[in-house]
Amino acid sequence: MRSDEPTRLANIITSLFRDQSITTEQVVVDETSTVDLVAGADAQDDCAVFRMNGDQELVVGSDYVRGPKFRLCEMGYLSEYDLGHYLVAANVSDIAAMGAHPIGLLSVVRYPPDMTDDSFENLMQGIKDACAKFRCPNIGGDIGSAERLILSASALGTCRRGGALFRTGAKPGDLVCITSPTGLAGAAMEYLRAQRPCAIIDELHLETMLDSWRRPVARVDEGIALSACRRVTACQDTSDGLKATIECIASASGAGIAVFEDSVPVPEPAAAVARHLDLDPLGLVFGDSVDFELTFTAPSDAVDQLRNEIGLHVIGEVTDDTDVVLCRSDGGRTPLPGKAWKHTVDEAGG
Amino acid sequence: MRSDEPTRLANIITSLFRDQSITTEQVVVDETSTVDLVAGADAQDDCAVFRMNGDQELVVGSDYVRGPKFRLCEMGYLSEYDLGHYLVAANVSDIAAMGAHPIGLLSVVRYPPDMTDDSFENLMQGIKDACAKFRCPNIGGDIGSAERLILSASALGTCRRGGALFRTGAKPGDLVCITSPTGLAGAAMEYLRAQRPCAIIDELHLETMLDSWRRPVARVDEGIALSACRRVTACQDTSDGLKATIECIASASGAGIAVFEDSVPVPEPAAAVARHLDLDPLGLVFGDSVDFELTFTAPSDAVDQLRNEIGLHVIGEVTDDTDVVLCRSDGGRTPLPGKAWKHTVDEAGG
Repeated sequence: MRSDEPTRLANIITSLFRDQSITTEQVVVDETSTVDLVAGADAQDDCAVFRMNGDQELVVGSDYVRGPKFRLCEMGYLSEYDLGHYLVAANVSDIAAMGAHPIGLLSVVRYPPDMTDDSFENLMQGIKDACAKFRCPNIGGDIGSAERLILSASALGTCRRGGALFRTGAKPGDLVCITSPTGLAGAAMEYLRAQRPCAIIDELHLETMLDSWRRPVARVDEGIALSACRRVTACQDTSDGLKATIECIASASGAGIAVFEDSVPVPEPAAAVARHLDLDPLGLVFGDSVDFELTFTAPSDAVDQLRNEIGLHVIGEVTDDTDVVLCRSDGGRTPLPGKAWKHTVDEAGG
Repeated sequence: MRSDEPTRLANIITSLFRDQSITTEQVVVDETSTVDLVAGADAQDDCAVFRMNGDQELVVGSDYVRGPKFRLCEMGYLSEYDLGHYLVAANVSDIAAMGAHPIGLLSVVRYPPDMTDDSFENLMQGIKDACAKFRCPNIGGDIGSAERLILSASALGTCRRGGALFRTGAKPGDLVCITSPTGLAGAAMEYLRAQRPCAIIDELHLETMLDSWRRPVARVDEGIALSACRRVTACQDTSDGLKATIECIASASGAGIAVFEDSVPVPEPAAAVARHLDLDPLGLVFGDSVDFELTFTAPSDAVDQLRNEIGLHVIGEVTDDTDVVLCRSDGGRTPLPGKAWKHTVDEAGG
């Protein structure tokens, strides 16, 4: 792990990553394939090194996170620890969406000159704790100074040969599922930006909503189960919002998707915020809410089998046209509600 | 490759990376180990996917580069294309220093709202061209907006089992070598920051010095040769400056290093700048010059063999104490000259 700052490296980072290369458990991909960490962050070399044994698929992705530029951070709701946790969750989520076992995370942390050692340590602890939670050791990266806090990372994972889940394979007749309800992250944003406090929401729902930013969950176990099932045809995380995710899977697969309004779960906090602010609750559920659930497609009998292994909600099905529609409970068919993430870059989160 | 910006993705990036997954050549690590790119940037999925076959060592690292905050960029000497090239060279150099074959690069490019499409395209072209030069396809990353241009990347490489080169194995009696003279990047900084133009330097040396920033070379072939030799005991790139690199290898290996003043090559541009500005030329060669040469240690007969394969300069030897010294031509022994990179974060480059 490179550092421009010898004191912080020596005092904080070294103690966080001591013995990592020795203590990190082997990842067993299948009967013939394993991954061992040979040199992690503790080695402080130019790179980290893994020993790969047998045939497997390596999965890698990068996510920059706005971090200190998150509106909720600017409003004082997110600590450095929370930002560190978020950085890891966002990156590991991409690995989970491919159906892979996480094997390591490279973190880029550039900090401003006035950042205190306590804040820096909290940030690194948030990274470390989230890495432990998602079984994805922080194997190195780049630490140094900048004019403000800059956070980026890359995550690596592995799965058996042919095990990676893509966005492209959805087939007409497949069911469309999500691992858990979406919309909490967006509801938190709408509620707190409106600055119209509601005692009931504050008491009952605010912590739950804030946890979608403070402790987001990368669906690692779910992704592994989806890959192991061998019949999942497409998968993507909802970090761009559910609407964008469904539209992307449909487009990449050259298929249509019909979502059934009555099947879409609306988390109670999102419903409460929608009532309070006079918004369409489905707009919160489908819109630019940066959640990290997995959206996937599979034949119905495979979905029945998966129900025994992971939480899931069937929300629609793949069709043989190329339309993405919401089938309303009144029989109408409309476009999916909600703002698409891609068109609101400066407003939204990730 | 994720993007917050559909137009730029569609118009610029898609055309840059078309058919990458099909056209990228297999990396042959050894008789039994290969790497194939299954899904690259063109797949536009959550992650890129490689198929790994057989036993091998995966090498991964991340480097953030100051890019627009480089002093030479602020002074107008570096274009967006140059910054893209630099980002790739800095990251691939870490792979080269481990002795690995590059297999892919994840780039994080966050651009300011006022960046023109031409500038953005030039930047991406610089990334693409450097990736081609170093045989390291740009397989994805994260593209989106930020308040200023932010550049970071992660590079991946592979080598045979046991083939990775670390900093830790230097043995007393080994020779200390560099692949090419260092100091050009630092000399360019000193000369241009001094703002004391010299017609001879401008005519004879400025382009050469600027090329160390505009077209730095990651020593990929050299790193592969060093690993293949099987007798190189330690290796590191000089991106923190030669002094810091030598001190790091000595410290990591628990050994001393004696550098012989008469053996250290001083590139003519650095000598000219030193004369012009009345500086110690060895201070430029050893100091905070962000070059991407490889510094390595090996027994002398292995060095003789390597001379037939790569360019190298023997500059010293590993000793059985723990001192790092410069053996002056007058017989004196002094610490290595030059400012160490780590203590000049806000002044220097990478």
